Amino acid sequence: MSRLVTGIGELVTQDAELGTLHDAAILVEDGLIGWVGPAGAAPAADSRVDVGGRTVVPGFVDPHSHLVYDGDRADEFAARMAGVRYDGGGIARTVTATRAASDDVLRALLASRVAEMRSQGTTTVEIKSGYGLTVADEVRALRLAGEVTPETTFLGAHVVPAGSRPDDYVALVAGEMLAACAPHARWIDVFCEPGSPHAFDGDQARTVLEAGAAAGLQLRVHGNQLGHGPGVALAVELGAASVDHCTFLTDADVAALAGGDTVATLLPGVEFSTRSPYPDARRLLAAGATVALATDCNPGTCNSSSMPLMIALAVREMGLTPTEALWAATAGGAQALRRTDIGVLRPGMRADLAVLDAPNHLHLAYRPGVPLARALDVTG
Amino acid sequence: MSRLVTGIGELVTQDAELGTLHDAAILVEDGLIGWVGPAGAAPAADSRVDVGGRTVVPGFVDPHSHLVYDGDRADEFAARMAGVRYDGGGIARTVTATRAASDDVLRALLASRVAEMRSQGTTTVEIKSGYGLTVADEVRALRLAGEVTPETTFLGAHVVPAGSRPDDYVALVAGEMLAACAPHARWIDVFCEPGSPHAFDGDQARTVLEAGAAAGLQLRVHGNQLGHGPGVALAVELGAASVDHCTFLTDADVAALAGGDTVATLLPGVEFSTRSPYPDARRLLAAGATVALATDCNPGTCNSSSMPLMIALAVREMGLTPTEALWAATAGGAQALRRTDIGVLRPGMRADLAVLDAPNHLHLAYRPGVPLARALDVTG
Repeated sequence: MSRLVTGIGELVTQDAELGTLHDAAILVEDGLIGWVGPAGAAPAADSRVDVGGRTVVPGFVDPHSHLVYDGDRADEFAARMAGVRYDGGGIARTVTATRAASDDVLRALLASRVAEMRSQGTTTVEIKSGYGLTVADEVRALRLAGEVTPETTFLGAHVVPAGSRPDDYVALVAGEMLAACAPHARWIDVFCEPGSPHAFDGDQARTVLEAGAAAGLQLRVHGNQLGHGPGVALAVELGAASVDHCTFLTDADVAALAGGDTVATLLPGVEFSTRSPYPDARRLLAAGATVALATDCNPGTCNSSSMPLMIALAVREMGLTPTEALWAATAGGAQALRRTDIGVLRPGMRADLAVLDAPNHLHLAYRPGVPLARALDVTG
Repeated sequence: MSRLVTGIGELVTQDAELGTLHDAAILVEDGLIGWVGPAGAAPAADSRVDVGGRTVVPGFVDPHSHLVYDGDRADEFAARMAGVRYDGGGIARTVTATRAASDDVLRALLASRVAEMRSQGTTTVEIKSGYGLTVADEVRALRLAGEVTPETTFLGAHVVPAGSRPDDYVALVAGEMLAACAPHARWIDVFCEPGSPHAFDGDQARTVLEAGAAAGLQLRVHGNQLGHGPGVALAVELGAASVDHCTFLTDADVAALAGGDTVATLLPGVEFSTRSPYPDARRLLAAGATVALATDCNPGTCNSSSMPLMIALAVREMGLTPTEALWAATAGGAQALRRTDIGVLRPGMRADLAVLDAPNHLHLAYRPGVPLARALDVTG
């Protein structure tokens, strides 16, 4: 079955040769792009959908989220914003609620969160475990995540659970837990933040990542969110696909990112929701590093699923142009997931499209907060 | 006809006695609220709608917008964000495009903008003229605005048009233009900013406002956006309902606002979209002033129609709690429009409701960018 998407006022392909087209069309065949070009030259198709002059861009690729959880922490957010000291338990509270939830409850929450993302234009999302922290609960989280995305990440090394000795927990994560989780995950990740009491230092992070690689998983890292540290250097050294946060970078970190093939994935929603300083995306681009954007959607530090907001924040706060920010949210995200079939619209790629209720893609940053984007259903 | 809205997980009434209810219901009779209380005690009704445990708040009241215009200025926004010098014409460009548009084109644009706001929870919006700047074009803007809202504002004194001498233009605005526009407007407004070459100084603003009051219009002021100035003091002295922006305030300005009954309407989307410092809402509340939030939705300095984004920004950037920000976006907006029938949910008020896809109202700030809010249709 083929379907022609026509009436595209502006088409951002992210392909170097195709560039940005106006008055364009896309032929979709069996879920893949068969042809891209001027509407007047479009081939015949079994059906067509007219987007009425709107803008079409690659569906957003969100390479960092934590969607498998139960429990509300809005009160913790409100206390943080008010500068009030509050210990509701943080991640431990989410771990308790998530462990207590049934598979069906978690499955329904996950489905509604993925649908919410899709309604805002996101067509690929990476989802991490990390609110189980036992062998059985981490396996369950990955099994459920795997029902909605191929981009599943084992993040047993999210925090050291209460009552555990850090080195014992690292041994569990890199041993029995990894063995049980690896069949359900594509990726392994670790929260490397030596200054944080419940996170992992460079040696612990290396242990986890090397064990993951030996088990056939590809690597990602949470690094340099709260201060300078070894996360970025370790990620580049080990060939991780992405190191995420990158808020505090030395010149050596920036040079390492520019010289390696590890993507710097920036999560400005976290800085927004924790009232923290933003990473400097412009510095990374100027050095030649590759930048992606992600939501980090999670109940603690950023409960936004909105890639359009991340684009607006990247422009307002991190020095990207609207066009660069859109690239980071599409092709950049695809690179952060080492995917060569998404993030760019050219023949042979997946027909993952987002349509914007706007005359051009600049509106994603020009009209912050307005729900302009949605994933386009090209199957119908 | 009566209709019961039930299944309300959290109901923020903004009424001092009713407060915030859980597991609540609202009876709507002929567009007005007939009853508010616990779901278990709800009276009978001709029909009912169950909101499935979601949160209900007063529909947002947006007391400052510029929705009657044609033309796109996304390129100007992108240039400003990139720090590139750009003179596409600014407001003059919008004036040219708006004058050239037919009534039907402007009517369609206006309808889509009001619908976009409603889809994000806004049930009352004030709309200004100010992109006509001739007698006929200002009258037309107000006539069209009056088709979609009773809150129409004559803003002939938006800028001094190219080729006009400021004092001549003030005489036109306060004379012939006012006489023609007054029948189509509830309010008169002036952009009082002595440091800006195309805006109006304190004496000019006084001339416009006093003429407007003499013609039966109520007063609002754009003041203290770009620097310190006489706007706030003038607004309070003349008993304006609201002075909008309030980014640069002296202690005397704050004291005047606290001592008068002029609302300080803050427009954080402008600071977001112009990368400017935010006003200090906390300082105003601490002094005892009344604070409202508005979008200022316009094609130049803030093209956002999202009151939820304004709430999130007020919390992130201006020191309000989520609960205070919601008050400013509902009851505060109503006070800025001197309306006693909206912004609060109690018997006798208009049944203007917004439903949030969230378990509590904190999510408006906790989940920035996510389209959680929509106006609830209670007529069906």
